[in-house]
Amino acid sequence: MNELALAAFAAHTDSHLVHAPRGERFARFARSFDSNAYLADLERRGLRWVARSSPHFPRALGAIFDAPAGLFLRGLGELELLERPAVAIVGARSCSTYGSDVARMLGRELAAAGLVVVSGLARGVDGQAHRGALEAGGITVAVLGCGVDRDYPAAHAELAARIGEQGLVVSEYAPGVEPAPWRFPARNRVIAGLTQATIVVEARERSGALITADLALEEGREVFAVPGEITSALAAGSNRLLRNGATPLTCAEDVLEAFGIEPEPATAPPEVGETAARVLAQLELEPAGADTLARALGLDAGEAAAILTELELLGTVSERDGFFRAVRRLG
Amino acid sequence: MNELALAAFAAHTDSHLVHAPRGERFARFARSFDSNAYLADLERRGLRWVARSSPHFPRALGAIFDAPAGLFLRGLGELELLERPAVAIVGARSCSTYGSDVARMLGRELAAAGLVVVSGLARGVDGQAHRGALEAGGITVAVLGCGVDRDYPAAHAELAARIGEQGLVVSEYAPGVEPAPWRFPARNRVIAGLTQATIVVEARERSGALITADLALEEGREVFAVPGEITSALAAGSNRLLRNGATPLTCAEDVLEAFGIEPEPATAPPEVGETAARVLAQLELEPAGADTLARALGLDAGEAAAILTELELLGTVSERDGFFRAVRRLG
Repeated sequence: MNELALAAFAAHTDSHLVHAPRGERFARFARSFDSNAYLADLERRGLRWVARSSPHFPRALGAIFDAPAGLFLRGLGELELLERPAVAIVGARSCSTYGSDVARMLGRELAAAGLVVVSGLARGVDGQAHRGALEAGGITVAVLGCGVDRDYPAAHAELAARIGEQGLVVSEYAPGVEPAPWRFPARNRVIAGLTQATIVVEARERSGALITADLALEEGREVFAVPGEITSALAAGSNRLLRNGATPLTCAEDVLEAFGIEPEPATAPPEVGETAARVLAQLELEPAGADTLARALGLDAGEAAAILTELELLGTVSERDGFFRAVRRLG
Repeated sequence: MNELALAAFAAHTDSHLVHAPRGERFARFARSFDSNAYLADLERRGLRWVARSSPHFPRALGAIFDAPAGLFLRGLGELELLERPAVAIVGARSCSTYGSDVARMLGRELAAAGLVVVSGLARGVDGQAHRGALEAGGITVAVLGCGVDRDYPAAHAELAARIGEQGLVVSEYAPGVEPAPWRFPARNRVIAGLTQATIVVEARERSGALITADLALEEGREVFAVPGEITSALAAGSNRLLRNGATPLTCAEDVLEAFGIEPEPATAPPEVGETAARVLAQLELEPAGADTLARALGLDAGEAAAILTELELLGTVSERDGFFRAVRRLG
């Protein structure tokens, strides 16, 4: 089968196809399809194609029951990196500060440990997971539900470019294919398929991330869910996964253990003064505003503000709306 | 064996005893011990005693491997209520707002469904679980690590009195026995022993609540853990329990299901206006300050404040330090 013709035909007919359709229409398309011209055009645009039948097609993805006809690739990363141990980090687009922090920390720590971090380039959890991996100087792969020539979402165009500097932006859809809601569940099976484990960071009920998790389970891959507060609608889906038997993820080491990777000895926490240490300990119990913190610890407002700024710069505290939370307990 | 003499001897020697010690000292004590006078004194003080060997001793507690010699009882509740289906709700003393809210909701909803709510009368999670059960007009039992004549902690004296109006305050320790740290792990086995399931709401690493959970598991009882944020030190112990195989608790129904209790059809949420509903939906995603909320939803500050007050009065929102969170998603 000419898989490239199939991918081009799917784009042409705005459909999702993993097997050649019977009937005259595709046959006619395939007969007139000029693979060499198509590939030359891809190359001219800095894009690549790997067919499902190629020995270079990622084995983990080839093993799923409805593997795509092939993958279009953008970016400078070697195709070989899709064979490395990889983990998917997925979750809500409108995530909370907690979900955002955790996605970024997991991206950073798992990439630092040598895992390829795969996600969907979406806003929220996806974007933070990619960013975390880039921060660690690690490899990350974005799987799109549209052509790899599209920057979707537009706000992540620069992020996509940075991903492509060492990693890859991939899609089963040919260049030019527009994003469409019905393509995202299909895209999610590629995310699950490329990886040995899927992490759901924060997900509402009926979230797309749960589809990724289901697909991962169906393919016998590991699924982790990050516990969240049961009063949060944003954690309803991820906590439901825990109910359904997903492995609770409490720190990056839980994932590394599943990959048989010996975690690096924990780096010593940044040195801070005694008062800053008290502030941090308090925030590890519960997020708080600066005034409450100052009162609780008997500090004056200026001192508390200075310490919070210091801790923010060290990356051990994050702030939103004047509310501070500890962020560095993972890993 | 004279179990009452044993309990009195343990109090006399400030020790923990579940079996009669060999040796002359106890034998001498037991010979001179006047059970009738002791029981008359208890009765005069409105207290009761049930020995381990009595047919009225709670069967679930009698089944544990180191069942206490007996229980001292305070309160108007019938002894029979210790035979009813019961659930322990335990957790951190210095809990977060989240832990406090969840403990209270679980106490309320599980008691409303007919379960006896057992806890330890401590500050934090314990106290909130008792209060929730009382709010529902349900039965709750406090298990003390000191004599039932002691109000420990003192701040919970009134709570203990309210528990005793329909429920019971119980202890294996004789009246007069002082609270001591080494008694609390022993007390925890009574909490686990009286119940078919133990819920850990929020617990640090090395929390006493984890001891209760371990004891429950050893006795083949069910253990639930409430998921919490992995960045919170207060959830480290409860999330660790999830890692170790505890059942994730996402709503009261998860517990009722384990008891084979058909949950009541969900009561309709309180009727609120359209704007209030938007505020609530936003808070279900993430706690926020009034200003942030108003900005996010395009409300003026006065309107936002009025709506938040309304939602607080309805019990659907709780406030701390100017930060609001949704509280009514359980059940």
